[in-house]
Amino acid sequence: MAKKWKDPLYGAVLYGQSGGPSAVINASAYGVIKTALESVHVTKVYAAENGILGILDERLMVMNKEDPEELERLLHTPSSAFGSCRYKIAAPEDDETDYKRILDIFESYNIRYFFYNGGNDSMDTCNKISRYLKKKRYDCHIIGVPKTIDNDLYGTDHCPGFASAAKYIATSIMEASRDSHVYNTGLITIIECMGRHAGWLTAAAVLASENCDGPDLIYLPEVDFDMQDFLDDVIRVYEGKGSCMVAVSEGIHYADGTFVSEAKTSATDGFGHAQLGGLAAKLTAIVRAATGAKVRGIELSLLQRCAAHCASQTDIDEAFRAGEFAVESAIAGESGKMVGFSCSRRNGYTCKLVLVNLEDVANEEKKIPLSWITSDNSFVGEKFVQYCRPLLAGEPQRETVDGLPRFAKLKKVFTR
Amino acid sequence: MAKKWKDPLYGAVLYGQSGGPSAVINASAYGVIKTALESVHVTKVYAAENGILGILDERLMVMNKEDPEELERLLHTPSSAFGSCRYKIAAPEDDETDYKRILDIFESYNIRYFFYNGGNDSMDTCNKISRYLKKKRYDCHIIGVPKTIDNDLYGTDHCPGFASAAKYIATSIMEASRDSHVYNTGLITIIECMGRHAGWLTAAAVLASENCDGPDLIYLPEVDFDMQDFLDDVIRVYEGKGSCMVAVSEGIHYADGTFVSEAKTSATDGFGHAQLGGLAAKLTAIVRAATGAKVRGIELSLLQRCAAHCASQTDIDEAFRAGEFAVESAIAGESGKMVGFSCSRRNGYTCKLVLVNLEDVANEEKKIPLSWITSDNSFVGEKFVQYCRPLLAGEPQRETVDGLPRFAKLKKVFTR
Repeated sequence: MAKKWKDPLYGAVLYGQSGGPSAVINASAYGVIKTALESVHVTKVYAAENGILGILDERLMVMNKEDPEELERLLHTPSSAFGSCRYKIAAPEDDETDYKRILDIFESYNIRYFFYNGGNDSMDTCNKISRYLKKKRYDCHIIGVPKTIDNDLYGTDHCPGFASAAKYIATSIMEASRDSHVYNTGLITIIECMGRHAGWLTAAAVLASENCDGPDLIYLPEVDFDMQDFLDDVIRVYEGKGSCMVAVSEGIHYADGTFVSEAKTSATDGFGHAQLGGLAAKLTAIVRAATGAKVRGIELSLLQRCAAHCASQTDIDEAFRAGEFAVESAIAGESGKMVGFSCSRRNGYTCKLVLVNLEDVANEEKKIPLSWITSDNSFVGEKFVQYCRPLLAGEPQRETVDGLPRFAKLKKVFTR
Repeated sequence: MAKKWKDPLYGAVLYGQSGGPSAVINASAYGVIKTALESVHVTKVYAAENGILGILDERLMVMNKEDPEELERLLHTPSSAFGSCRYKIAAPEDDETDYKRILDIFESYNIRYFFYNGGNDSMDTCNKISRYLKKKRYDCHIIGVPKTIDNDLYGTDHCPGFASAAKYIATSIMEASRDSHVYNTGLITIIECMGRHAGWLTAAAVLASENCDGPDLIYLPEVDFDMQDFLDDVIRVYEGKGSCMVAVSEGIHYADGTFVSEAKTSATDGFGHAQLGGLAAKLTAIVRAATGAKVRGIELSLLQRCAAHCASQTDIDEAFRAGEFAVESAIAGESGKMVGFSCSRRNGYTCKLVLVNLEDVANEEKKIPLSWITSDNSFVGEKFVQYCRPLLAGEPQRETVDGLPRFAKLKKVFTR
């Protein structure tokens, strides 16, 4: 009797992480690894070190040899536990070397399921590998697991990692806001958030206003930045209430596309030399010179993307489920897809897992709709608040030792 | 029958906050206010706005009019809820104006108990007022409640506020450490912590090493900084393990006393112009120039002193008890004292409340014993770890709304 095409593949699982770390990418890792370890169709579960680089270098860790309790601690362990990479794979038409190597590795370990966890570039890599293996008639089911604090992936309501970073930003701004109202002297505070091309993270600052005195002004990379308008806005708020709190995205740029952080000279700032600090330090100096007020700059830095201690339980749950669903879908025969979230916010928040074509996702960038930004380009509206608020809910019950986090300690047993 | 001198005073309580904010100063406020509101000897409970400035301006809030539930939320509300000040009161010998005004206010509100919550300068203020009122034979019991993230108050094992800031620093460094090991490329990370004259907070970075890859080097203001030694240290570590994480105190200084952050030129750094960023940005540029490595600077900024979301429950409990004990002691007849902690770390951690003379505390600065710093001046030893570790324990059960903190909302009903 001929083999039915619908029979699940029987073979090994390979998982890899790529792109910038997040507070919950390891929750997705745990979703993939746990589900794969429990599947009767899976012979072995491997994780590549440093994503695609670890595949090319044959640095594969055997997940079957890990202690299940340590693996579970991945739920609350930030950053990429298996190492990440920013390797941009060539198009197979231009250079087949990497693909041949990948096929070799997949064949020698009988990899029949591959899960790649990352953002835009990673989904592109995932898509290229998927297409190549299909062309070579190597039977392997490939599913992308979304991850990016930038929240700019197409085809999904939001991305795992975003909500926890957003929660850290809103929480930190609430606390900084309390701090900035302590003395009876005026103060302007400028807070720099991550987001080079999309303003989702910076916009999350608005949530600090829900039951606290949050930011007065928010500047996003979705619209052009004008230094004079910015100074006018800051001065207007400061003169009105004696203080002003500003959230700016690192990616704000002038109309000609130049990043404000990189612009070396301008009539307004008057600096002719290279700046050591980042955007916050630069704007702080400019506002101080223009107002004479006390101005404080805060760069939230990489702490915003790895703050597992301030993670959203909703985010952790969804990240885990994305990994789990990826494995379930692959075993059910799906391939060339990315896990996405389809959410509703009517009658409470619900999040449904879906699959989207990798072709459609790869290299598309999702930005905040312009209609969600106020017409003066200096704040976000209620639509963003309604979108973002439910994603932050839930306090994780983390394990601590003497008050400090207990992260997963993996054995990392390599195949060779 | 003659009035017995030991009878408790019957009158109003006044509470004020001073100096820099902390994550738990409001827990001390709640300790004072709750205990005072429940005392049969207390007629009214007032809180001054902006500390001593609010007393001089007669900006007093009536705590009896606050909702008890909101007052209880002070336990998890960071920063100084009643406003603070950095007002340095003159010595009464030099200028009696402020003291006369204070006496006027105390008389008109029948203030018989005064609690001032702050650091070194605040204890000095407290002491001066105490001596003045005694000289004027105005019967008022005055107790200082310690508060400073800098942990530099004399006469107490440690200060409320320190442990929560230390916990934030160690937690953030653990998370940043995970983040910095993600790519298979070298990285040097420089993390700047608060502490102008005492290195307690920066030293707390060492706790990140307990169950994680923490800092490799720690530089404190207790010893002189040498730029060449620093670069040699960093290069040695970096060449050995391919990465290096450094914690530096904002107050590190050269042998001549110049702060490294303020030194404008040096043969080593080669910068002749003013720097916009802080110390971390400066050292980052210097290390980058000296090594050619990828270097990342992180300034933990004021977030470290107001991070109630990462507070130590031990710290919250002790801060509350310090306030409570201040009121109990004052009603029992004590005055001219500061609440201190006497702790033991044998057979587990215990903390006993004591009273120390304000005279002995005022303006003394407690620094890390030199014997706790390694002989090469680039790390701290086990004695510091044993001292600090128990202070961080305990995760607060905070109230959240949609995943974000719910801070106290006070009515702030003023007396006029």
